[in-house]
Amino acid sequence: MTTRKIFLNESEKPTHWYNIVADMPNKPQPPLNPKTKQPVGPEDLAPIFPMGLIQQEVSADKYIEIPDQVQDIYDIWRPSPLYRARGLEKLLDAPVKIYYKYEGVSPSGSHKPNTAVAQAYYNKQEGVKKIITETGAGQWGTALAFACAQFDLKCEVYMVRISYDQKPYRKIMMNTFGADVYPSPSDRTQAGRNILKEDPESNGSLGIAISEAIEMAVQEEANRYSLGSVLNHVLLHQTVIGQEAEKQLEMAGDYPDIIIAPLGGGSNFAGISFPFIGKNITEGKKTRCIAVEPASCPKLTQGEFLYDFGDTAGYTPLLPMYTLGHNFRPAAIHAGGLRYHGASVLCSQLLKDNLIEAVAMQQLECFHAGIQFARSEGIIAAPEATHAVAQVIREAEQAKKEGTQKTILFNMCGHGFVDMKAYEDYFAGVLSDHTFTENDLKSALGEIRELQP
Amino acid sequence: MTTRKIFLNESEKPTHWYNIVADMPNKPQPPLNPKTKQPVGPEDLAPIFPMGLIQQEVSADKYIEIPDQVQDIYDIWRPSPLYRARGLEKLLDAPVKIYYKYEGVSPSGSHKPNTAVAQAYYNKQEGVKKIITETGAGQWGTALAFACAQFDLKCEVYMVRISYDQKPYRKIMMNTFGADVYPSPSDRTQAGRNILKEDPESNGSLGIAISEAIEMAVQEEANRYSLGSVLNHVLLHQTVIGQEAEKQLEMAGDYPDIIIAPLGGGSNFAGISFPFIGKNITEGKKTRCIAVEPASCPKLTQGEFLYDFGDTAGYTPLLPMYTLGHNFRPAAIHAGGLRYHGASVLCSQLLKDNLIEAVAMQQLECFHAGIQFARSEGIIAAPEATHAVAQVIREAEQAKKEGTQKTILFNMCGHGFVDMKAYEDYFAGVLSDHTFTENDLKSALGEIRELQP
Repeated sequence: MTTRKIFLNESEKPTHWYNIVADMPNKPQPPLNPKTKQPVGPEDLAPIFPMGLIQQEVSADKYIEIPDQVQDIYDIWRPSPLYRARGLEKLLDAPVKIYYKYEGVSPSGSHKPNTAVAQAYYNKQEGVKKIITETGAGQWGTALAFACAQFDLKCEVYMVRISYDQKPYRKIMMNTFGADVYPSPSDRTQAGRNILKEDPESNGSLGIAISEAIEMAVQEEANRYSLGSVLNHVLLHQTVIGQEAEKQLEMAGDYPDIIIAPLGGGSNFAGISFPFIGKNITEGKKTRCIAVEPASCPKLTQGEFLYDFGDTAGYTPLLPMYTLGHNFRPAAIHAGGLRYHGASVLCSQLLKDNLIEAVAMQQLECFHAGIQFARSEGIIAAPEATHAVAQVIREAEQAKKEGTQKTILFNMCGHGFVDMKAYEDYFAGVLSDHTFTENDLKSALGEIRELQP
Repeated sequence: MTTRKIFLNESEKPTHWYNIVADMPNKPQPPLNPKTKQPVGPEDLAPIFPMGLIQQEVSADKYIEIPDQVQDIYDIWRPSPLYRARGLEKLLDAPVKIYYKYEGVSPSGSHKPNTAVAQAYYNKQEGVKKIITETGAGQWGTALAFACAQFDLKCEVYMVRISYDQKPYRKIMMNTFGADVYPSPSDRTQAGRNILKEDPESNGSLGIAISEAIEMAVQEEANRYSLGSVLNHVLLHQTVIGQEAEKQLEMAGDYPDIIIAPLGGGSNFAGISFPFIGKNITEGKKTRCIAVEPASCPKLTQGEFLYDFGDTAGYTPLLPMYTLGHNFRPAAIHAGGLRYHGASVLCSQLLKDNLIEAVAMQQLECFHAGIQFARSEGIIAAPEATHAVAQVIREAEQAKKEGTQKTILFNMCGHGFVDMKAYEDYFAGVLSDHTFTENDLKSALGEIRELQP
């Protein structure tokens, strides 16, 4: 019997976040003011974010120190365990070593608190009293609710209506951590009222909920907005995952040939891969980093690299990214999260420069992989996380076919205890795959082209 | 900043289960055949349990070696972390050090897999093909479903009807691990049909579900029954918790003055406390061990020490235990699990001999404590586990009043991610406390007195 789990002590946690911008051969293009089409400056963002985060958003420093108070909260669950997937390896019987970071040990059950805690800290430092955000399936809202409780901040969450109705447990988790939760679209904001006027039964979308949260945040001086993915500073905070993984793999005497993570906005993928992509660039390592997106929301594999809004109402700056258009919504049949219309600026630029790979995965393959993983490893994965497992299985089968030995690392970004409805639908046979067409893309991108500088 | 979590390596796991029977000053009285009122022999239990477990049930050996294959599965989540509750300590501002074992890291999210894996192993060893069990809120069924998946055994679960209807996520978790789940009472057994004839809308009870599972198990040679608490071998398997805690506390330079755990059947309480009670008996240590039961199911504090059945239909042997009568069911308003009518034979004997203490706790105090714990420690506790937190808070306040320094250890036996409905009811104000009366007891015990030898 050999070890399944590799732990680090709290004192071995990374001391700095890693900023990949410093190492990128092509720096990301700047966000633009949608009216002037000129780059947005820090002062434009000041009503929305605290200056500590804005500085990180635009920083080119390679390392940014993690404050002590953030580290102290990280200690609740970090360093997260690195697992050797012995059960899955046995099942697959392929010439692969499979490792995964398990971020489901966090208070909200996903990787999201890595940035939520940092964001709450910088807001608190600057005298903010209340943080307002949106949440889709609820992972991000729960994480921010927890983080705000640690710093005695108020927290207000706009939750996509259909999730609010279908996932009451997530709402109650946020309440338990002390947050107020409203279904979006709501009648509390102009953005929400506009949507409700057109469609009083609207199910909502992440883009709409972002618009509502931003609108509320800018109304009061002591309030700020917070985003759970996409932005540079969010991806930055997640890099503790990859840095820990590197140390843990070193303890096991390994280094990954392949890294795999799901991609919604990009923070989960960035968290585990960026420190290794940095080594690819600066030390000539050759780790393949593969982002897995759902076939029904395929911005990386079928979207275009364009300037687009981050939200539906157009409150955000224009961001240069692979996008399906800010009005895009995945087909109703899609169950597994990762619904955001665009990919983060950093991940988009890396893909454009062929420094990462992207794969679109159908949902039935994902759930099938999730069940194999649950039975062999004992962890019921969040539907999002099953995308990574499905790709791991593909890579293992490929290695078997080729007869090559591979070391695979992936991010098990969260557990699925609060997402069992999706598994139920899978067992009941009501889920199906969805083929995204050229026409979907045309209609999705529509007027976005007119936004280009 | 000082450490929050204390981990052990997999190689530091306990090598043996600890059998408190060896150290008990008064050995437990034997289970009796209800017809003959004579002690039950191993052969009487053979149609129900595999011989490996029956031997453990009657063993007087102090230590029983943990098989390698069980240890290998334990490695998926064991050793579980010991937490220093720095957040809760700060909140309470009392002269106490608070530590807790967190068993929520297991595949099913509670301490239950500690015995489920062992039971599945011994069944597999003896050629059993299918294990049949009951589950109330679903914790035990999920644990056994996971364990059976590890040993390629079929698993069939009778789930108390009201939980089956109200907690669909638990059912789907069991399905995900590969188990078949039926609501109880069902029309698959005579015990179930009898209940349904009297009350077609019956919500079910743990006692009924046990009867159904036993009835199904004895029908086929290759099937066996499995119980998730109460029995000696179940409590035995849980002692890995307390043994790990002792090592982890030693690393922190501490030894507990007080140990606290919830008590339903007794396995959770036994798991963390028995190794320390052993030291109380053999080494003159003075750790107070406090079992916390719900005020609406107060067998330890208001029940009587009598011979009683373990199930509703009377299929089990008569067990000498503190009981409210095998037909007892807690008031409908009770939300927090721990609903079993009796306490395990070992815990009952220890209480009778004043080697442990018992406290009954009202549910509003428990949920209030659970919310304080969630916000300060970042863990949303299972409603059962909040009973321990509430008592910890009482002890901390007592220590503050007395000005005495105490070290408290408790068992955070599981997370509440799949139990958020109970928190929702608490927030909605629909829960209330319940006062158990002398009359409740009289009616509950009723004809039980006639069963005595």
